[in-house]
Amino acid sequence: MSYTIYLSGEIHTNWRQQIKQGILDNDLDIEVLEPITDHDSSDHVGINILGPEENNFWKDHKAAKINALRTNSYISRSDIVIIRFGDKYKQWNAAFDAGIAFGLGVPTIIMHDESLTHPLKEVDANAYAVTETPAQVIEILKYIS
Amino acid sequence: MSYTIYLSGEIHTNWRQQIKQGILDNDLDIEVLEPITDHDSSDHVGINILGPEENNFWKDHKAAKINALRTNSYISRSDIVIIRFGDKYKQWNAAFDAGIAFGLGVPTIIMHDESLTHPLKEVDANAYAVTETPAQVIEILKYIS
Amino acid sequence: MSYTIYLSGEIHTNWRQQIKQGILDNDLDIEVLEPITDHDSSDHVGINILGPEENNFWKDHKAAKINALRTNSYISRSDIVIIRFGDKYKQWNAAFDAGIAFGLGVPTIIMHDESLTHPLKEVDANAYAVTETPAQVIEILKYIS
Amino acid sequence: MSYTIYLSGEIHTNWRQQIKQGILDNDLDIEVLEPITDHDSSDHVGINILGPEENNFWKDHKAAKINALRTNSYISRSDIVIIRFGDKYKQWNAAFDAGIAFGLGVPTIIMHDESLTHPLKEVDANAYAVTETPAQVIEILKYIS
Amino acid sequence: MSYTIYLSGEIHTNWRQQIKQGILDNDLDIEVLEPITDHDSSDHVGINILGPEENNFWKDHKAAKINALRTNSYISRSDIVIIRFGDKYKQWNAAFDAGIAFGLGVPTIIMHDESLTHPLKEVDANAYAVTETPAQVIEILKYIS
Amino acid sequence: MSYTIYLSGEIHTNWRQQIKQGILDNDLDIEVLEPITDHDSSDHVGINILGPEENNFWKDHKAAKINALRTNSYISRSDIVIIRFGDKYKQWNAAFDAGIAFGLGVPTIIMHDESLTHPLKEVDANAYAVTETPAQVIEILKYIS
Amino acid sequence: MSYTIYLSGEIHTNWRQQIKQGILDNDLDIEVLEPITDHDSSDHVGINILGPEENNFWKDHKAAKINALRTNSYISRSDIVIIRFGDKYKQWNAAFDAGIAFGLGVPTIIMHDESLTHPLKEVDANAYAVTETPAQVIEILKYIS
Amino acid sequence: MSYTIYLSGEIHTNWRQQIKQGILDNDLDIEVLEPITDHDSSDHVGINILGPEENNFWKDHKAAKINALRTNSYISRSDIVIIRFGDKYKQWNAAFDAGIAFGLGVPTIIMHDESLTHPLKEVDANAYAVTETPAQVIEILKYIS
Repeated sequence: MSYTIYLSGEIHTNWRQQIKQGILDNDLDIEVLEPITDHDSSDHVGINILGPEENNFWKDHKAAKINALRTNSYISRSDIVIIRFGDKYKQWNAAFDAGIAFGLGVPTIIMHDESLTHPLKEVDANAYAVTETPAQVIEILKYIS
Repeated sequence: MSYTIYLSGEIHTNWRQQIKQGILDNDLDIEVLEPITDHDSSDHVGINILGPEENNFWKDHKAAKINALRTNSYISRSDIVIIRFGDKYKQWNAAFDAGIAFGLGVPTIIMHDESLTHPLKEVDANAYAVTETPAQVIEILKYIS
Repeated sequence: MSYTIYLSGEIHTNWRQQIKQGILDNDLDIEVLEPITDHDSSDHVGINILGPEENNFWKDHKAAKINALRTNSYISRSDIVIIRFGDKYKQWNAAFDAGIAFGLGVPTIIMHDESLTHPLKEVDANAYAVTETPAQVIEILKYIS
Repeated sequence: MSYTIYLSGEIHTNWRQQIKQGILDNDLDIEVLEPITDHDSSDHVGINILGPEENNFWKDHKAAKINALRTNSYISRSDIVIIRFGDKYKQWNAAFDAGIAFGLGVPTIIMHDESLTHPLKEVDANAYAVTETPAQVIEILKYIS
Repeated sequence: MSYTIYLSGEIHTNWRQQIKQGILDNDLDIEVLEPITDHDSSDHVGINILGPEENNFWKDHKAAKINALRTNSYISRSDIVIIRFGDKYKQWNAAFDAGIAFGLGVPTIIMHDESLTHPLKEVDANAYAVTETPAQVIEILKYIS
Repeated sequence: MSYTIYLSGEIHTNWRQQIKQGILDNDLDIEVLEPITDHDSSDHVGINILGPEENNFWKDHKAAKINALRTNSYISRSDIVIIRFGDKYKQWNAAFDAGIAFGLGVPTIIMHDESLTHPLKEVDANAYAVTETPAQVIEILKYIS
Repeated sequence: MSYTIYLSGEIHTNWRQQIKQGILDNDLDIEVLEPITDHDSSDHVGINILGPEENNFWKDHKAAKINALRTNSYISRSDIVIIRFGDKYKQWNAAFDAGIAFGLGVPTIIMHDESLTHPLKEVDANAYAVTETPAQVIEILKYIS
Repeated sequence: MSYTIYLSGEIHTNWRQQIKQGILDNDLDIEVLEPITDHDSSDHVGINILGPEENNFWKDHKAAKINALRTNSYISRSDIVIIRFGDKYKQWNAAFDAGIAFGLGVPTIIMHDESLTHPLKEVDANAYAVTETPAQVIEILKYIS
């Protein structure tokens, strides 16, 4: 039986690629959804399409709303949301996605290094699995498929 | 007409006290809900009540689940969730609360310094108001009451 | 048995006052919710509280979001939303409120002159009653109380 | 990943055609739903199928209900509702559709000239993007696809 | 712990009075909601308040919609809907109410003579109890209080 | 765009066949769902599969529950429920289906002779169209397709 | 801020009494709901009120449905469901209640001896806290109040 | 018209195989979902993938959460959940699944020997059919297809 998963969070390592490769290698019937992971494109999409803003707040606002069209739609049609937290940047959008998934009743799998356990305790506590590597996520997906 | 509000996020300044004082001063019919804001008590509640854990992950897990009993219940019965982000710590739980509120359809008011605009753009974009001070929150509560 | 009603729409005649008086005169157990009906205050609340905007779009945006905190909360806790359309102005917010109520499953009573029947046909078609006068609304509220 | 969109609102310019052409030109995996845009057919469908009415109110009512069978079904199965407001007519049905989408939790993209910003502020404030041209809508659809 | 119950269906015997008396006699903390049970008033309310109709269909329509304002509101706020079927008339509105309650997830208790078992089998099959007398309903209410 | 419809109610005329033929003749993209319309099979399915009952109430109960597995599943996955009332029998299950559809938010089209207008007024009042013939239903389906 | 809790499960020790006493002793603003815990009354309520059955299956069925009127209503209006499993009997109704709570999104606290950990792993895994004593439950309730 | 069914509960007899064979033999358009029925694999999946635990509680917890990813997803996308109770073991997870299905509004068919009628009365009372053999389940599936 197939699953749809959404890969949220950290965009600076190739963890998404590893999960997609693992799905291919194991021939799993899983559809993978992702956000726009091109940082620059994502930051400027609002002014690129809808016109310039003098105030950075509105520049960010317009970009975030367009990205939310994709993000919220993908989270709500997923069976599982997988969210990786890295060791850099604030990544509030990743925690925000975890909250949206919880509010909508979509299960999450969280991925992060052990060093982030304490600040992520609320996010982890509502997850169905807390992993450290893409390989573990693939093992879970294999097991439940 | 009365509102119920939940005050989530930063616990190191007295912003909650200021909002509660403003509600009193203006005689607003608003019920205020809050998380446990005693940091130590909140971190240790799991092992304090349910017994020790060797692994910090499970110590955090048990605490986070007990806190979630309160937090999730309060968010879901609120008309508005007000979330303040400070300039220290990761505060992923604050962004997580914002996401839960959005997933449940509860409107949010966000409060933070202008310097945090960019990393909070997704959280701000789904808010009904982005404020910098408790005084602004009180003005909004007065206006809608 | 009590009802909560929300009075949306036209703000230039005293129809809200007439309905409230009728509720008092008939001693009905009905709680009345209303939007901010002071036009100027409603238009400027965004910049008044959250600071100036050069662009009128964002001035309007900030005001509309703060008003929505009240409006959406009131619609969703009402048993019936009563919406009056006048013969002036575009009043898209009134039709928008009617749609929100329909989307949330809250019944509506619409009030307008017969001359507006054709352009309001979609809004009327989803109403539980289409009235022309506050007196008719009061009769309905008396009947169902 | 595919989207389903519904094109609501103004029926006197060819904006729907432009969006459909843009989807084709960019080979986007997007299903397009539309209301009946033949004005005459839409106005008379009630009496045409269900028999004549002496009173215009009921003529309009029967037509609006049959159109609502299509409209409401399409809005509720869409990922995004795109609504254009023109500079003529009352277009309360367009604002009503925007409200239904909001009440059902379906994101909207609004399209209108800058001159309509003020009367549409409530509708715009709940949109994920406010555009002026079909080309902008196509750019958004390309970006999120 | 209190319950709210709605008494739907047959209006020609005093079964509602018996249940209300039983609640009083047993000092149960139960709020009782009822439809308008004055047949004439209920049939004519549409034209009485909203003006005459030549066509009986619309006369009935306007009355039924106003009654639905009360009925649907009461069903949706009830913990239990109790519906009695008599041996006369078509009573489709009673079966309709049973369906609405089921669709909304509100439990039902059905009351009717044994002779009606076969035609009511679908309605009975979704009930939490099928009774023959008001005394049995009171016993159930006492037991669960 | 396709629709799924469920044909509920009267089983003694060939109205379902006429609608299905009309869908074929007009090449409409509509999936048709139906209850078991073999009266005998439907009445005895409970004891046929699950074993005999001395008490007719339980015989009917077991049959009605098995039929409800199909009926409720089909109603909840339909875009439109079409229900015909004939001039014989109590047909409470038809009115019950109309109520379930309303409670679940699924639009209905009702079909019956004019003579049944008064007892069906509550059912009709919540319908999107009240028809007399299969040909009218087909016209509506053609129009909205 | 007040909570409503429902005490489900084992009925042979005085754990409910201990929790209620703890709530009183600590002056907590918590409303306590309970099932009928008189075993005999609960088993015979169906035939006592609705008449005898030859078949034990239907005797049990009628009793279980009447108890469900209370149980389901109480679970759905609770903020937290607390369920104790003892070391005797099958107690499938307790696990069933835990599932209903989970399906409805109501958080649970589970109480049982360590010896039951393995067979209760699915039930525990969805709980917000797994306790062994009423004293621990009271500590949690104190902490979140 | 197709159904999706989930086969929950007892894993020591070949009842799932019989149902799947019956579906094949009768050429029914039914998709069958199942839990992981390899007992050992299911018990150890948590530590196998996510690393060892000293405490059996957490070993069980991690396994149960990963299994829940599959179980809860499958229950929520099923039209019918079929649950068999055997005469050995506590099988609280089977009763838990029945509760989840009920809480989510998914109909159940229960299968067990007559000897288990009394302890399963609450679970049975909310089922659409209570069966003793896979052959009966197949008859029901044939009938409703």
